[in-house]
Amino acid sequence: MNFRMIGYVLALVLKVEGFLMALPLLVALLYRENRAAIVYLICLAVCLVVGFIGTARKPKNITFYQKDGFITVSLAWVVLSLVGAIPFVMTGEIPRYIDAVFETVSGFTTTGASILSNVEALSHASLFWRSFSHWIGGMGVLVFILMLIPVRDGSHMFLMKAESPGPDVSKFVPKLKSTAVLLYKLYIVITVAEMVALLIARMPVFDTLCLTFGTAGTGGFAVLNSGIATYTAAQQWIITIFMIAFGVNFTFYYYLLCRNFRAALKMEEVRVYLLIVLASIAVIAVNISGIFATTAETVRQAAFQVGSIITTTGYSTTDFNLWPSLSKMILVVLMFLGPCAGSTGGGIKISRVIIIWKSARRELKNVAHPRTISKVKMDGHSLNEETVRSVQVYLCMYVILFFISVLIVSANGFSFETNVTAVAATFNNIGPGLDMAGPAANYLAFNPLSKIVLIIDMLAGRLEILPIILMFMPSTWKKRD
Amino acid sequence: MNFRMIGYVLALVLKVEGFLMALPLLVALLYRENRAAIVYLICLAVCLVVGFIGTARKPKNITFYQKDGFITVSLAWVVLSLVGAIPFVMTGEIPRYIDAVFETVSGFTTTGASILSNVEALSHASLFWRSFSHWIGGMGVLVFILMLIPVRDGSHMFLMKAESPGPDVSKFVPKLKSTAVLLYKLYIVITVAEMVALLIARMPVFDTLCLTFGTAGTGGFAVLNSGIATYTAAQQWIITIFMIAFGVNFTFYYYLLCRNFRAALKMEEVRVYLLIVLASIAVIAVNISGIFATTAETVRQAAFQVGSIITTTGYSTTDFNLWPSLSKMILVVLMFLGPCAGSTGGGIKISRVIIIWKSARRELKNVAHPRTISKVKMDGHSLNEETVRSVQVYLCMYVILFFISVLIVSANGFSFETNVTAVAATFNNIGPGLDMAGPAANYLAFNPLSKIVLIIDMLAGRLEILPIILMFMPSTWKKRD
Repeated sequence: MNFRMIGYVLALVLKVEGFLMALPLLVALLYRENRAAIVYLICLAVCLVVGFIGTARKPKNITFYQKDGFITVSLAWVVLSLVGAIPFVMTGEIPRYIDAVFETVSGFTTTGASILSNVEALSHASLFWRSFSHWIGGMGVLVFILMLIPVRDGSHMFLMKAESPGPDVSKFVPKLKSTAVLLYKLYIVITVAEMVALLIARMPVFDTLCLTFGTAGTGGFAVLNSGIATYTAAQQWIITIFMIAFGVNFTFYYYLLCRNFRAALKMEEVRVYLLIVLASIAVIAVNISGIFATTAETVRQAAFQVGSIITTTGYSTTDFNLWPSLSKMILVVLMFLGPCAGSTGGGIKISRVIIIWKSARRELKNVAHPRTISKVKMDGHSLNEETVRSVQVYLCMYVILFFISVLIVSANGFSFETNVTAVAATFNNIGPGLDMAGPAANYLAFNPLSKIVLIIDMLAGRLEILPIILMFMPSTWKKRD
Repeated sequence: MNFRMIGYVLALVLKVEGFLMALPLLVALLYRENRAAIVYLICLAVCLVVGFIGTARKPKNITFYQKDGFITVSLAWVVLSLVGAIPFVMTGEIPRYIDAVFETVSGFTTTGASILSNVEALSHASLFWRSFSHWIGGMGVLVFILMLIPVRDGSHMFLMKAESPGPDVSKFVPKLKSTAVLLYKLYIVITVAEMVALLIARMPVFDTLCLTFGTAGTGGFAVLNSGIATYTAAQQWIITIFMIAFGVNFTFYYYLLCRNFRAALKMEEVRVYLLIVLASIAVIAVNISGIFATTAETVRQAAFQVGSIITTTGYSTTDFNLWPSLSKMILVVLMFLGPCAGSTGGGIKISRVIIIWKSARRELKNVAHPRTISKVKMDGHSLNEETVRSVQVYLCMYVILFFISVLIVSANGFSFETNVTAVAATFNNIGPGLDMAGPAANYLAFNPLSKIVLIIDMLAGRLEILPIILMFMPSTWKKRD
């Protein structure tokens, strides 16, 4: 492994995190939160000093292999989180470091699972930092950093592969760097669009910023204890629409931008995604009719919760833990599905689900017609067998990690529903599950071991399992190759 | 498809079922249960008449392709169940046909999920028929039938593949027919051994017969409302040991029989299986200490429940629904694992779990060392990629069917725990789940649609998904090829 290079990138991560902390510092100054200001200033300074020292000398060997790439990404996210958690402890807002790490990992991985029962007690600076971490984590910090530094062009691929959600990284343009730049531009444009919409709908500026960060990164940290419940219907609808929009594969927007409407409409994943969203809203709206006063509110509540869960955002406007069994179960299934690949959301991803579905169907066809060789097709093209296989292996790892996590978490003695959905909600980067992990509850009560497992699940969910597990394999660290 | 041949085999199935009904008829006569005697006599007669008419003319074309084989097996099980349910309705013991079908499918698939709240009200004849169906279903009725009839030798393979549990049918001896005969002999010997042991432990003869059938087929229907709870400790231990023994891959016994102890000890699956059993018993025994009076009873309860659940038998000596969260969750995980392939149990099977685990590990290795090509090994041999792939596809289908089933069942409005474990307990052919589907409850309260779904799940579980789904594909029936 290229340890020199890994160290260099980690120092770069620290440097970038230092710069990013300038924003909560600014918020602290604006709101005259002196203690928070000092804390963020110290953290910022330390990050920058360490970062600049670490990046003073460029390593000679700038080649990255796949393993180096995966390990670098994993470590970068760990460092980002461990350091990002420090301000919460220093301000005294989250006294225990493990809880602060949980909260920060939850932020960067765009999970939105919280250990806080009273978020309104936080300083504006920390609320901002929490939500801003969603926005950073949504698109991925490594890809951003790697636009800035020199590595061999093939090496970018390994890093992007590890950090981008979905079974396949599609390149819009021949040069990967340019693709990354393009993705960031799209991300920023849609983010600003949501901010403008919410401001027009008269949401306060601070709330607008934080909630937009949470929507864009499909995170889910709110700034009020009531979540999104007390905002106006118009504001809730805007958030709903943007949540669903951020769950769409960004390639779709790229096609729209190029006026390649045929290619955009041909995207099977996007069509299936929207179909699932609409169908789920319809079924749940019927199922929960009677709970809310008007049909308009019923539809809005259904749409908000469906959009929030399938995109793995995790905002809530109501305690869906109290909904009927069918609606709850639909939401649980959506938790696993997740939105499109190439979006900012978590979960298994629609394209993987389609590939799993189609590969199962192919198997059935093969039994009936053993002589014909059929390929799994998507968007009209045949997928190569390697992609199909990697999706199947992904599902294997997913199931293994899921069961092991549930087993360890169940040692808390909470309900079956809590154990299963706490893991589902963190592993799929959603936030709220059901029962003790439901929208009206938080994760403070879990024991430290469970918190560590859930932290690993959040990271594994965001980085799609492989890079994180790789970090725990002794053989990864053994040989110097 | 060779419809003539399929019809012929189905008629054979009826004929065999007619003969099998002679046993409950005998029981009815012994216990002077007149109504039951008449009912079983009528059913027996009708089965034999239809069976003999249907098999009067042998079809000329005796070739079977894979699709024909799979469809024949599925239809055979459906016919077996639909007909086997009739006596329950005619005796008035289960008034609704759908419930009777549920009970019968549960019997033949060795699930043991019941819709009866008071089994003690059944006639001895029906209790016997219920338990006997476990024994028939355990080893598979088709393989038995096909020992008797002439099909091309390659065609046997397709039928055996569809009916035998596990990722791979191992042939002990070159001729498949001889393997089937050998398996049946082993099955009968171990069954008789359990009967003798229970009789020595002074269990009444009727209970001995029924409970042994349930153990051997890993079914789980009991003859008392209290399940196995009221039998003596010695009797419970005997059942525990034989449950675990019937969960072992029968190849293991074959090796022992040939005095090939090295090969027997080399079987990874058996070692992992026993390790999981012992580890689960240990953890649960510690976790539930305090619930029972003595350590001996604690260990016995833990061992019985672990043995019962991992082998997918589903007997119970206590309401484990009341156990602490960790113990319940371990049992739920065991529900999915199942025992060894090539045993009479259901679930995913240990060998598949090993293959899933190893293929995931290989993927991690490949990231670290992309230049080396590694194979998945088992028992010291490299598995061919087709086996690995088919296990991964199996998992895909498993997950899809599982989620769809849970969604439909959740329309009952029961708890999350009930929905998930009801599907888990039927799909994995166990019987009892948790909460409303727990050992102290039954499946009567589910709506008809859910019952149909659970029936399909039981069949899909027993026949390992593919043959059953194939039956529901319109394309299967369309083309005459």
